This record gives sequence, structure tokens and C-alpha cells, in this order.
Amino acid sequence: MSPYAAPLRDMRFVLNDVVGLGRIAALPGLENADPELIAQVLEEGGKLAGDVLAPLNAVGDKQHPWLENGVVRTPDGFAEAYRQFAEGGWNGAPFEEEYGGMGLPWLVSTALQEMWQGANLAFGLCPLLTQAAIDALREVGTDAQKALYLPKLVSGEWTGTMNLTEPQAGTDLGAIRTKAEKCSDGSYRLKGQKIFITWGDHDCTDNIVHLVLARSPDGIAGTKGLSLYIVPKFIPDADGNPGVRNDVRPVGLEHKLGIHASPTCVMAYGEEEGAVGWLVGEENRGIEYMFIMMNNARLAVGLQGVAIAERAYQQAVDYARNRVQGRAISGSSGGVAIINHPDVRRMLMTMKAQIEAMRGLVYDTAAAIDTADRHADKDVAAAARRRVDLLIPVAKAWCTDTAVEICSTNIQVHGGMGFIEETGAAQHHRDARILPIYEGANGVQALDLVGRKVARDGGAAMGELISDIHATLADLSAETASDIRLNAIHRHLSAGVTALSSATEWVVTTMPSDPASAASQSAVFLRMFGLVVGGWIMARSALAARALLKAGAEGDERYLEAKLVTVHHYADHVLAQAPSLLGTITAGGQTVMALAEDQF
Amino acid sequence: MSPYAAPLRDMRFVLNDVVGLGRIAALPGLENADPELIAQVLEEGGKLAGDVLAPLNAVGDKQHPWLENGVVRTPDGFAEAYRQFAEGGWNGAPFEEEYGGMGLPWLVSTALQEMWQGANLAFGLCPLLTQAAIDALREVGTDAQKALYLPKLVSGEWTGTMNLTEPQAGTDLGAIRTKAEKCSDGSYRLKGQKIFITWGDHDCTDNIVHLVLARSPDGIAGTKGLSLYIVPKFIPDADGNPGVRNDVRPVGLEHKLGIHASPTCVMAYGEEEGAVGWLVGEENRGIEYMFIMMNNARLAVGLQGVAIAERAYQQAVDYARNRVQGRAISGSSGGVAIINHPDVRRMLMTMKAQIEAMRGLVYDTAAAIDTADRHADKDVAAAARRRVDLLIPVAKAWCTDTAVEICSTNIQVHGGMGFIEETGAAQHHRDARILPIYEGANGVQALDLVGRKVARDGGAAMGELISDIHATLADLSAETASDIRLNAIHRHLSAGVTALSSATEWVVTTMPSDPASAASQSAVFLRMFGLVVGGWIMARSALAARALLKAGAEGDERYLEAKLVTVHHYADHVLAQAPSLLGTITAGGQTVMALAEDQF
Repeated sequence: MSPYAAPLRDMRFVLNDVVGLGRIAALPGLENADPELIAQVLEEGGKLAGDVLAPLNAVGDKQHPWLENGVVRTPDGFAEAYRQFAEGGWNGAPFEEEYGGMGLPWLVSTALQEMWQGANLAFGLCPLLTQAAIDALREVGTDAQKALYLPKLVSGEWTGTMNLTEPQAGTDLGAIRTKAEKCSDGSYRLKGQKIFITWGDHDCTDNIVHLVLARSPDGIAGTKGLSLYIVPKFIPDADGNPGVRNDVRPVGLEHKLGIHASPTCVMAYGEEEGAVGWLVGEENRGIEYMFIMMNNARLAVGLQGVAIAERAYQQAVDYARNRVQGRAISGSSGGVAIINHPDVRRMLMTMKAQIEAMRGLVYDTAAAIDTADRHADKDVAAAARRRVDLLIPVAKAWCTDTAVEICSTNIQVHGGMGFIEETGAAQHHRDARILPIYEGANGVQALDLVGRKVARDGGAAMGELISDIHATLADLSAETASDIRLNAIHRHLSAGVTALSSATEWVVTTMPSDPASAASQSAVFLRMFGLVVGGWIMARSALAARALLKAGAEGDERYLEAKLVTVHHYADHVLAQAPSLLGTITAGGQTVMALAEDQF
Repeated sequence: MSPYAAPLRDMRFVLNDVVGLGRIAALPGLENADPELIAQVLEEGGKLAGDVLAPLNAVGDKQHPWLENGVVRTPDGFAEAYRQFAEGGWNGAPFEEEYGGMGLPWLVSTALQEMWQGANLAFGLCPLLTQAAIDALREVGTDAQKALYLPKLVSGEWTGTMNLTEPQAGTDLGAIRTKAEKCSDGSYRLKGQKIFITWGDHDCTDNIVHLVLARSPDGIAGTKGLSLYIVPKFIPDADGNPGVRNDVRPVGLEHKLGIHASPTCVMAYGEEEGAVGWLVGEENRGIEYMFIMMNNARLAVGLQGVAIAERAYQQAVDYARNRVQGRAISGSSGGVAIINHPDVRRMLMTMKAQIEAMRGLVYDTAAAIDTADRHADKDVAAAARRRVDLLIPVAKAWCTDTAVEICSTNIQVHGGMGFIEETGAAQHHRDARILPIYEGANGVQALDLVGRKVARDGGAAMGELISDIHATLADLSAETASDIRLNAIHRHLSAGVTALSSATEWVVTTMPSDPASAASQSAVFLRMFGLVVGGWIMARSALAARALLKAGAEGDERYLEAKLVTVHHYADHVLAQAPSLLGTITAGGQTVMALAEDQF
């Protein structure tokens, strides 16, 4: 119902001026990432997103996929849109040209992916999962597996899925029961049931490549007995074309709150003779490989948060500009558009400020992936890897929690109309609600953050980040006297990073001695981290905007001035909450576990 | 899908020990409110809510009402449930016995209403609107109108509706176009269209009494030309029974995000000869009368927030007790129920703490209504009225915003299952989303608070509240040394009320000089107000629990100890955020209006 326009201006600013596409394009193997070419690529991508994918978003919300003779049928227009998407080569944006990809940096493909997800979240999940499957095969597939599967997956001719969850095994994958038996020809037969399989079946492509976590033939209990298997829907024949139908089938579709167009399948493996599969990588290292798939997918889910928040924001602005209701607070002869009402304006400003901070965080993390993967200096690459590992849980959880808030605010801006399904605001609100749940619920992200990412190395990676934030503060200091906006972000970022340092110290000290207390505050710690690192992004944005304005911005003054105001708003309205969380973190563990179960 | 049990234990504690039912029962005309009798009444109400209304909640979500030959049909079981509700006399709980009511205090009927709303929000809206209609007729109806309509409405034999909104007139009622023409017999003919009319038509009763805001025959433009009219669906005959069908009809039903079972009607008045109506009260005072209906309805919507949050909390606790997933953080041989995981426990504790604070706030406000209506000392009654006026926007907005958060947290506790409609968690999340919107969007509540309730009297009513909070702090001081829980609430409530005082001063000073800036921070001010007044309720709860424990609590120790822990949790996890909002309030106005419309 609501149009979508890729936010190209802000994307270019974040890419070029905040994160630094130039620096990324200088990395080995990324010679294609010429900024002018990239600007064109983004513009083309924006057309596909706005003209083809976005109009299908409401269609897919109403006409759910359905099961027909053992095959999932997708809503009208989805198969054709997927064809256009694949034929445009978009699916291969971040992958090597040898497999038919565009060879673009993750940074750029992240901007492109924001468009697909913003235009149509349910659609965007399909390539998101394919990318995860490609990541795993690139990393640990045999040469034969790579040759057979990667060109088809990179082109988008086939799609990929991740099969982890079972009814008794959600967060706790150690409880997986799907079982692989080895055959004499080296292949395996899988039997078991998987649930919540996103795009587990559909009619958009000729074949689907399932990556399945299952218990190895002699697999011990728990996660250490799990391996990863490739199970194609149709077994490729000698020419690599879809051949015999494999014994894996969708047997049910979930009736969900949102992302209706994305078929969430119950998948039955081996109801007859067993689903034919092949081991990926080594036996019993499935969990490790799963994290290869999961890690980039987690960042992509954080990006989905940015994307749907941007979509909801655009709808809110559009409605607020056009809905006439009430007089201006300063007095007006007739009714005014509600964008003139201060409380509506506050909602829009806060949405805008949060989205820009979130976008910067996700893009910055994507650039760190490029650096980690490619930088010639191993120390620089290793430092970038530490940064990626540290930021991914924050990008996933903070951006998705905030996206849920923003989509709810969009409904509020619409008033009663927001509650009526025809408006479309309700769909974004329903769709967004999955984001804090899948690819590791946000509570799991928070535990991962405090346990594996902050406490395990004694706060070392965190110390590197904090020192980078201090460097930005030093850059800001020179500018604060002359600009109230830079002064505000400096002041609040200083207070925020001081609180974050103290909280980090508390986490590092508490985790070994009282893990329950540390864990109980992990989500609060993650929230504080998100607010502060978002503030860091906004501070860098302000410095970049200021520098461009000083250099003479050639017609871009209004965008850059708006950026400075938005940074200022982020400081006073969002970042300002961070220090108050410190007291909660350090004291809050006392009450969380204090009641007995029957006292709830 | 999820059961519901009225939270009788906490209700009794709030009624008897925090708010003071004894004090209210001593007011003239409330002699029926004997605490032992009330306990029985609540228990009976709980049975109806849990056994009859709650099971229909999921039914009504799936089977929407529909239009059939110009009449709205309700989902299976609703008409029968309504009959049981009316026959039990529940509809008349707070009304005079002369009209067939129970003559109970608002305080008690508020506890009862929490049950109806918690069991089935869509159902509960029907009596909620009837009560609003009764309020208006009691206040300004003629004796003949009272005699004709009140017994039927109080008994629930007929239901009532409020007809305000039109497509162009939502928040801005001055834009209403529905028009009344006077007839020679003293009646009126109404023509126009109303939208968003809750329970505007249905098949549960023989008649429906519409209270309609429409432009008077010679009404000037704006709100001052509006009058209030009674328009019954069937015009009562000489015996007061439903007679001739009136020219008012439902012509459409909205397709909504939630509260599906509540028919939200487009109502056509006077498509033929004009809908017959009678003036209520004086001409051109419609807006004033509407606020009589609206004021109690706003408190009731705040209560709906408490109710659905309680329902979601019960479901979350139930799921967390039964879902086994992962090992205990302290180590365990097998899987444990997720209630043992610290982050899940934190979510449950925060839900519980917020709900108990919200319940106390709404019940306390209801008790102030009883005091304002009945206290023999006019000064005491007037002070109570000031308190009611001050607290209603906070109860409405803070409780409903928080309810949306809590229903979202319930989904999060459920993980992937929360996103599947069958679980029922999604329904609560969808249903709750209307609460910050209807009966005056929360932004309107915030403006009402800072403008009419805080700034207009120069902060006088606010000063009375702040001084009451200081009195509670003084009571707490005596206890803090010996109890870490009381110490925590004392410390955070002190900081909170200090910040609230400063923010109040800022509002009072800023509103006359810079209304846009004051308005832009109104929602932040309301949030701080909610957090602090919730802290005040929790502080009083802690004092009451402590006193009962000291007096020897006779088997109630575990409940009272849990209350103290919950207060402590509220202090560290919820109230602790209040002071950080002061900086936002005082500085935040600088950015809100700083961008031009085209810079969004």
C-alpha cells in the first residue's frame, strides 16, 4: 500500500563519507568497487526494489503461500519478480566472479540488500538464506561441491535453505534428532523433521539446496555429534541439472503473525527411503559450519531491521505530510498537516535518527567483514575480525529491537488508520516482529555478546572499540565550541562511553564469579552498547557532514545540515538514555533470580 | 489458546492494602463495599472471566463479525456470553441501585473490569462503551431520558456506543459534519457518516443506544457548534420497548490488526428520512459532555492496558515454566525449563513489576474518582478531582504504551512459537496495539497533561502529588536501613521525584513562552511521570507489605516477600530510567522542529 524508495542519498553518504568505500575498494580483489559505478549500481537496484518488489509486499501479505500436491505455491507475482531479481545478477552481488558473481564488497551488497529487505521483507528472506548457504559451501565445500552448486546458487537459478530447528531443538541445537546414515557410495540418508524452514519449498526455481544439520552416523549426544549435509530437492544429474526427486518434502506451512509471503515450512526428511545427502566439510563439525552461515545471516537480520524501519519511516512521513488534522500550536486559520504538530515531529525525528545510526552500524560492520576477509596486513585483518565478532550481536539485536519500536511508532503516527489493515502500517509492524526472534533470539545475542565477545578475551576487543570511540571524541573536541550540534553529540557520547567502559569492566569481572548475574543483565548491556555505538556512528557522521560543508557542499547543504540536526536529536533523545542503564546493569542482578518459580 | 485467571491475590492487596478499600467503603453511599463481600464478588467475577469470556478470546480472533442483511453478526458464543454477563448483573457494578446497579465503588468495579478486559479485550469493549453512555446520561440526561434508558443500559439489556469520529474528524472533532435538524415535535433528524464506531452494531441485545456528536441546527463551525444526541437503533415505544427501526445502520466493518471480535463499524445516519434523535443536555455543549464519557473511558483504556499485559504475562510465565530448552547457566545434567535462564527471568520480572505498578496507578485513580464523587468534605473532594484529572492521561498513555511492550515481550519469551498465530501470543500483541490509539491517542494525552493538567494551574495539582510522594519517602526513610529492597525504592524514587519536579518547573515555565517546545517534549514528560508515579505506587506497596509481614502475615509471607522483591526490581530496572529523561525534556525541543518538511 505504501511506496518505497531506496534511501540512496543517505546510503551514499554512509558508504562514501562515514564508512569509507574508498578504503574498502582499495582492498585486494575489490577493484570493481569504483564509487561512480557503485552509485549507478545502487540506482539500478533501487529501481528493482521500488518498482518490482515493493508493490508485491501487500500482495504477499494477503495471499499466503499454500501447499498443493506436495509443493509450495507462492503468491501472485513472486516467481516473476524472483526471475527478474536473478536475471539482473543481484543474487551474486557479493560473490566471486568465477562463480558468476559481481565481486562487489560486502559493504556495497549490504546497501543493495537493504533495498530488497525494505521493499519486501518476505521476498528478501529467500536470497538471504541462499547467501548463507553459499557462504558455507565457499568456506568448507569440496571442489566438486563448489563446482556443482555454487554457480547455480550464486546466479540465483537455485535457492538455498538452512535447516536447523526441530520442535524440541530451538535455541538448544544439541537436542537435534534428525539422523544421517552412511551409504556405501559415500552419500548419506537423512531421516527426521525440521520446522521453521524459511523458503523451505517454493515454485520460483527448478531446484532448492537444503543445508541440514543432523546427527552423524556415530554422533554423540549434544552439539558435538552434529554434521552438516547438502540435501538437494532434486538430485543433480550427470550434467548438473535437476534429476531425481529427493525424499525431502514440505508437509506443513506455519500460520504466522507476519512475513506471510515467506513460506515457513515443516520439512520431512526421509519419510520413504531416506533423503539423499552429502557431507559438507568434516564430520561432527556441523555446528561450527553453521556459525559460518549464521554469522553473516545475523548481520543480514540486523540489516532487515534497518530496512523495514526505513520503510515504516517513509510511510509515516508520507502520511504526516498529507493528513490534515487540527490547528498549528502556534495558531493557524485552518487545519494543518500533522507533520506540523510537535509530538508527531518528535516521533519522525526519533525514527530518522535511530535509522541513520543503525544503518551506519550495519554498514560499518559489513566493511569490517571486507577488511577481515581481504586486508593484506594480517594484524589489520585480525583486528577487523575481532570487531566483526563484537558488533554482530549488537547489530542483530539492537537494530531489530529498535525496528520493532519504529514500526510501532509508524502505526501511532497514523492514529486509528494505523490499526486498519488496508493502510499497510500494520503489516510492517507484524512483519518486523520476527526480527528479534530468528537467527538467534535477541537474548541469545546478548549472552553471546557478554560471554563470548566481551568477557572471554577480558574486554580486549571491547577496549579497541572504546579507544576508537575516544579517537572520534578527540576529533570532535576541536569542533564543539563552534557548533551546538557537535557539542551535544560530544557531551552525550563522552558520558555514554564512560558508562560503557564501566559496564564492560563489570561484565568482565562478574562473568567468571557470578555468571547468572552477568547473564541476567546481558540484554541491558547490549542495549547500552547499541545506544553508544550508534552515537559513535552519528558522531562520525557529524564530522563528515561538517567537513563536507566546510569544503563547499555544492547543492548538498540541506541534506548535510539535516544530518547535523539529526545527530543532535540522536544525542539528546536516544543516546542520553545510555548512562542510566549502568546502575541497572550493576545492581539489577540482585532481583532477577530472587523469586522462586511459584512466586510468579 | 492461553487460559486466564483473574489475579485475585494481587487485586486484593492493591484494593485493601495499597489504595485502601476501607477508606472508600466509608464514603457516603458505598455501604455495600464490605471487604469480605467484595472478596466474594471478585471471586465470582473471576469465574465468569476465566470460564466463559477467556475461552472465547481466540474464537473471536479467528471468526470476525460480519454484516448480514444490514445487521452485524458476532462470533460464535459471544451473544450467549454477553447474556450471562448481563444476567449476572456485572454491567451495573458501579451504578446506583435505583437503576438496577450494584452500587459498588469505582475502585471495585475497576478490579472487575480488569477481569473482563484481561479475559477478552474485544468483548470487554462492549460494556466499556455502555458505561460511558450511562455516565453521560446520568450526568446530563433529563429525568425522562434517565427513566427510559438508564435501567436498560445499567442492566445490560441494551448497550451503548459513542459516535464521534468521521473520516475528516479524528483528533480534531471540530471538523465534524454530521448534522442535526430540529423537528416540530422537539426531536431531531441526524444525517451523516461516523467511522470507527466500536460495537456500533451487533446481535447480542435487542437495542443499542447511540450517543452521537453532531452539529446543532444552527451550530457554528468548530467544536462550539456541536451537540450530543441520543439515537436509539430501535425507537422505544410507549412501554419503553424497542419499536420502530431508526434510520441508522452499519454500512461497513473495518478489517483491523487486532480486537477482531469487536465490530468496528462505519455507521450511516439518515440515509433515508434522517435518524431520529433527542438532544442530551443543552445545545452546543456536546464536546463538554463528550469529555464526561471520555474521561472514565480513558481510565478504562489504561485499565485495558493493565489487563492485557497481565494476560500476556500469565501466558509468558506458563510457557517459561513448561518449555524445556538448554542447560542451566550454573550447569545441569539435562535441559531445564527456560524460566531458569536469567534473561528469560529478567523479562518476566520486568513484566510483573510494570504490571503491578500500573494496576496500582489505575486503581488509585479509580479510588480518587469515588472520593471526588462522594466525599463529604468539599475540599477533600475537590483535591481528589484534581488528582483524577492529573492522573487520567498518565494512566491512559503510560499503561497502554507499557502494555504494548509487555505483549511484545511475551512473544519474545515464546521465541519462534510466539510468531505462530496458533500460540495466541501474537493475538495479545495485535490486540494491545489499539490501546495507545483510541479514546485519544497517547500524544493527545501527553498534550492534555502538559497543557491542561500541569501548566494551566501553574503546577499546583502536580505540587500536591509531589508532596504526597515526599510523604511516602518520609515513611520509607524509617525503614531503609534494615531492608535493601526498601532502600532501593527510596533511593530511586527520591531521584525520580527530584527529576519530575524539575521537569514540571520546566513545563510550567516553557508552555507560555515556547508552546511548541513544551509540546514537543510532552510524551517524554508523560513517560517520566508514569515511571515516577509507578514508583510511588510500588513504594506504598512495599510499605504495606512490610507492615503486614511485621504484623505476622499468616501464610501470606511468600506473596509479600515476592512483592518486596518486585518493588526492588521496579526500582533498579524501570524507575532508574526516569532521571535520564530530564535532560531530554529540557534540551530536546531544540531539534524537534528544526528541519523543514522536505528534509525528512
